[in-house]
Amino acid sequence: MTLKSIDREYLELAIDTAFRNITEGGGPFGAVIACHGRLVARAANMVVPSHDPTAHAEIEAIRQASALLGTHDLSDCVLYASCEPCPMCLGAIYWAGIRRVVYASDRHGAAAAGFDDEKIYRELTHDKDDRSIMMERGLIEQGDNVLRKWEEYPDKVRY
Amino acid sequence: MTLKSIDREYLELAIDTAFRNITEGGGPFGAVIACHGRLVARAANMVVPSHDPTAHAEIEAIRQASALLGTHDLSDCVLYASCEPCPMCLGAIYWAGIRRVVYASDRHGAAAAGFDDEKIYRELTHDKDDRSIMMERGLIEQGDNVLRKWEEYPDKVRY
Repeated sequence: MTLKSIDREYLELAIDTAFRNITEGGGPFGAVIACHGRLVARAANMVVPSHDPTAHAEIEAIRQASALLGTHDLSDCVLYASCEPCPMCLGAIYWAGIRRVVYASDRHGAAAAGFDDEKIYRELTHDKDDRSIMMERGLIEQGDNVLRKWEEYPDKVRY
Repeated sequence: MTLKSIDREYLELAIDTAFRNITEGGGPFGAVIACHGRLVARAANMVVPSHDPTAHAEIEAIRQASALLGTHDLSDCVLYASCEPCPMCLGAIYWAGIRRVVYASDRHGAAAAGFDDEKIYRELTHDKDDRSIMMERGLIEQGDNVLRKWEEYPDKVRY
């Protein structure tokens, strides 16, 4: 696929960010966010250096862009990633309202490099009792009461 | 299902955190993490007050626990959530290595309160061209080169 010139520029920046991150102690992933064509975030994977399993490049970039723009709504933004987002990051992309993602490598390339995103994609399609982790429920009535309280609360800000 | 006494205590704390958060401007969700029975994190949904779409209770709790324990590996931890984790948070749970999750409400209760986690679960099962967001690929060779470079890098820390 041939990318438009601005998409190519930002995707190259995401890939370059990933490349440089390898020798800086992080994982080989980078992400860039642009809003109306303007760069608003650039981040690399910081899981190991930050001791933070959520510090994937896309999550870090979304946090940067949201902080800069002062809103959790990034629906005017495009996200560029050196590799296909994992389920955690793709979930974050939906919650941020991002409507377009451009990426280079995919989950199979990531798997070959030792990152098993595909396994997590599969796990998420399973029912809770068929997952590799143990998931249990309890206090359902108490939990549902909180959601009802939210529904009734007049000053809530929906998102 | 009847919970063990320690599970009940921590799940009640997560639910109470969710409940209190409603009048504090956040979403109606709370999470708690325990490590070998000891409380190491407690967080509420901060999406709106923090302008951060990734600031779900579970993500915030994982970040807190990782910072406190000084590692991205939370495999000795149990996560308690007032509501079933969304795909973003469940992805984070897998990356953190958490092996047990206890929760109260589920995605259907969340949907009734206006939080469409179920839609994101469905989207993640679709091929990229069938999603509600636009996903495009390019510069695949350059992206794959970065992953190969990582594979060859002798000082990498796998996670």
